[in-house]
Amino acid sequence: MDMIAEILTGFVAQMQKPTLAFLIGGMAFAAFGSKLEIPEPVYKFIVFLLLMKVGLGAGISVREANLIDLAVPAVAAALVGIAIVLLGGQTLARLRGVTQMDAMATAGLFGAVSASTLAAGMAMLDEEGIAYEGFIGALYPFMDIAALVTAIVLARLSAERKAAVQMAGQPGGVAALAVGGGYGNGKAQMVRGILVDTFRSAAISALMLGLALGILARPDSVYENFYDILFRGLLSILMLIMGMEAWSRLSELRRVAHAYVAYGLLAPLAHGALGFAAGLIVHQMTEFSGGGVVLLAVMAASSSDISGPPTLRGALPEANPSSYVGTSTGLGTPVAILSIPLWIALADMFIGV
Amino acid sequence: MDMIAEILTGFVAQMQKPTLAFLIGGMAFAAFGSKLEIPEPVYKFIVFLLLMKVGLGAGISVREANLIDLAVPAVAAALVGIAIVLLGGQTLARLRGVTQMDAMATAGLFGAVSASTLAAGMAMLDEEGIAYEGFIGALYPFMDIAALVTAIVLARLSAERKAAVQMAGQPGGVAALAVGGGYGNGKAQMVRGILVDTFRSAAISALMLGLALGILARPDSVYENFYDILFRGLLSILMLIMGMEAWSRLSELRRVAHAYVAYGLLAPLAHGALGFAAGLIVHQMTEFSGGGVVLLAVMAASSSDISGPPTLRGALPEANPSSYVGTSTGLGTPVAILSIPLWIALADMFIGV
Amino acid sequence: MDMIAEILTGFVAQMQKPTLAFLIGGMAFAAFGSKLEIPEPVYKFIVFLLLMKVGLGAGISVREANLIDLAVPAVAAALVGIAIVLLGGQTLARLRGVTQMDAMATAGLFGAVSASTLAAGMAMLDEEGIAYEGFIGALYPFMDIAALVTAIVLARLSAERKAAVQMAGQPGGVAALAVGGGYGNGKAQMVRGILVDTFRSAAISALMLGLALGILARPDSVYENFYDILFRGLLSILMLIMGMEAWSRLSELRRVAHAYVAYGLLAPLAHGALGFAAGLIVHQMTEFSGGGVVLLAVMAASSSDISGPPTLRGALPEANPSSYVGTSTGLGTPVAILSIPLWIALADMFIGV
Repeated sequence: MDMIAEILTGFVAQMQKPTLAFLIGGMAFAAFGSKLEIPEPVYKFIVFLLLMKVGLGAGISVREANLIDLAVPAVAAALVGIAIVLLGGQTLARLRGVTQMDAMATAGLFGAVSASTLAAGMAMLDEEGIAYEGFIGALYPFMDIAALVTAIVLARLSAERKAAVQMAGQPGGVAALAVGGGYGNGKAQMVRGILVDTFRSAAISALMLGLALGILARPDSVYENFYDILFRGLLSILMLIMGMEAWSRLSELRRVAHAYVAYGLLAPLAHGALGFAAGLIVHQMTEFSGGGVVLLAVMAASSSDISGPPTLRGALPEANPSSYVGTSTGLGTPVAILSIPLWIALADMFIGV
Repeated sequence: MDMIAEILTGFVAQMQKPTLAFLIGGMAFAAFGSKLEIPEPVYKFIVFLLLMKVGLGAGISVREANLIDLAVPAVAAALVGIAIVLLGGQTLARLRGVTQMDAMATAGLFGAVSASTLAAGMAMLDEEGIAYEGFIGALYPFMDIAALVTAIVLARLSAERKAAVQMAGQPGGVAALAVGGGYGNGKAQMVRGILVDTFRSAAISALMLGLALGILARPDSVYENFYDILFRGLLSILMLIMGMEAWSRLSELRRVAHAYVAYGLLAPLAHGALGFAAGLIVHQMTEFSGGGVVLLAVMAASSSDISGPPTLRGALPEANPSSYVGTSTGLGTPVAILSIPLWIALADMFIGV
Repeated sequence: MDMIAEILTGFVAQMQKPTLAFLIGGMAFAAFGSKLEIPEPVYKFIVFLLLMKVGLGAGISVREANLIDLAVPAVAAALVGIAIVLLGGQTLARLRGVTQMDAMATAGLFGAVSASTLAAGMAMLDEEGIAYEGFIGALYPFMDIAALVTAIVLARLSAERKAAVQMAGQPGGVAALAVGGGYGNGKAQMVRGILVDTFRSAAISALMLGLALGILARPDSVYENFYDILFRGLLSILMLIMGMEAWSRLSELRRVAHAYVAYGLLAPLAHGALGFAAGLIVHQMTEFSGGGVVLLAVMAASSSDISGPPTLRGALPEANPSSYVGTSTGLGTPVAILSIPLWIALADMFIGV
């Protein structure tokens, strides 16, 4: 009984942390039917400032970082992004009521990274006084892009294979198969197209801009006196918006298969564990910090809420946005944010942060 | 002559205070025909930040407050809200060219509270170095909701009574009276409906959210390093917007009865005096501070500019918005803000702040 | 070779300054095809805050300034504004494919002042630790209004002269000439109309409001704790937006005469030199600082991006916005901002700042 009381006390203490409290407050707000809305332009601007903060901070750190120290976690981040999509193909895609196309779109979104969730992780580590690598924001695009490209390529290939099979059973099928023989070239072009689209998306391009300015220019003073100062406050508002948004998206899940609910609840935990394990290996190989391991887990647990959906909508128009956006924004994101204390506790247990 | 010079000097000094100067500047700006507009989303966001600041601040203070210290001024605030509406029924409603419905809507708006005016009062006390209870923002909903509910209930009952009388004179009137007999139940439901609507309105729900987060979570650091720091600057912009808005609303008053102009100019002073008197009584009964008395007067003098109008429009669709919004935004609000120095001077005279 | 290397190193160091780096970053961003957009209301609000900052700062300084110290550079600023427009009439207006109307509109825009460019100049002087007069923002309207009024009056007079000549050749021409004889009176009215329009424009009226509040009220604390603190960070975002805007406007220049490209590239340098020379003379006559000379050059080099275009569109509807806005926003503004280090270097050489 004592242990349960202790766990409950710990849980309540965690939920009182501003970052989580604002998220829960936003959900309660929407559930209560409040008419308050934070205007869209303000939301977009807050996200932009957060991305610039993460990008500039990473860029400034990369300037002084040992490139090997950066390369090992970057490779790990990309591998985790790919693994999450492959895992989705083995689990979600095989569940009842889920098409291969929708499963890949959903897994891609869960493999991609949420800047807000990452920012929440950073804020919570700051609150606890746990150090992490300044360059951690530079890992974001590696995991994000690896996951989106893998998911889109797999979904497109599977769609083409299905189309080819259908055509083979029809008159003229042999010709279609012959055309399909030119895959190798088309695939390279497809990957290039996806990469360009992803880099041009609002989130990745803002992050890359911040990174480039942090590396090439000398924005240290404006970073410290503006972006970093406003960071915590703006994050509290963003958490509120995300809580409201999560609640209003939940209703969309009623119209899709139950499998998505299970995936939305469990996948962030499984992916976070994957990211945590990868982080531990990097920690063994290099001097990667405990805070860094936590943030790799947070990135893996998070699902993309800004740049992912439009990229997927463009690349996989056949997929149903209600299923992948509803699962990600309505369940994946709140579960990922609420599980941040778990990764901190695990890091404390395994490494002692 | 010396006294007049002294009063004039004091008046000019008051008008130079940033809060009042920005309000007057906004009115001059609009009068001059400036094409500058502060975009609507920015205005909404500033109001949201101010409400969160007032709510969070109150919530953090309530955590450590003695509940009795809070209960007495809360009851006083609610009584003042009700008294203002009843006073409006005895004065404005009896003037020429004013319908009972419009009078109740106007009195409800003047009884409800303006977060911006309250914030201006807080900023001016801060400037003067006069202390006030941290929980003062928690009194806002008591006065606001009491006034709106009283006004809407009275207006609805009077409309139903009039309809019943008209029907009684017609064939089938007895049946209508019989239906009217079910008042008791319908009235309870009506009050519940009004309460739900009021709590869901943008201003009250944002304030309640701030209060809840302040009480249940630990947002102290984000409150101090973000909401409180931006407060004064954002308030200066809000005063500018309110001055511009007041000027542009003044023209609407040309189309309504002269009674509204008299009410808009005099009611804030009468209501403020009522709030001041109530505050003095609370000051005698508990340790309520002089700054608290001033802010109770400021709340009573203010009229709701954000959540009041849509609530009234929903509940009293027969009332004419030109009359109540024009009177409140065009006259009531600037008079209430410009009279803040008066309550400070009175508190100094009566209590010595 | 050493000198070239030194110049290149100096150039790279200048481009790394946050202000210039964010401008270049914005251009690269747009060139790369990023989908990121900073919402219009946010842009408008940032510009408003910057104008208030410049205006308030100038107003607070004017309070304590010697009026003679202010009058001499103000006259110089107005003369530079007029000279730039006359220069445009002697150069741009005579080039192939350029109408008198379009030339005057373009020259008026280049003579008018950009608050963002002036703010960038202030930020760069702050970075270098170079002092300048606090009242410098008060010179803005003198140059801005002088240039706009001169350009519009000259364009209108030339259009009327042309119309009169055409009518004189037609039946009834004598009557038209007779009407034209009433010029003197119409001209005074025209100038009055242009002045009212210019003062009411968003940029000038916000600046005048800031000036008035700075002089008449006591906004020093809100200025220091809000407007001045946010200044540098907001400027970095504004530079980003202006870089993106410049890139997207460049394409408009394809549709207009080559003369505009030459003017857009060279005029900011010529005008800056003119402003610098005028500043040097003021420096000889009064105690005008080296930083003040730089900012007079920056104002002269800049072209109006906010209030100028709508004022010109209203006053000269026959002029083609693609030519004057494209030349100004696409070329004039980036060249003016990128040339700020040049004026600093020149001031160091001539005065030793």
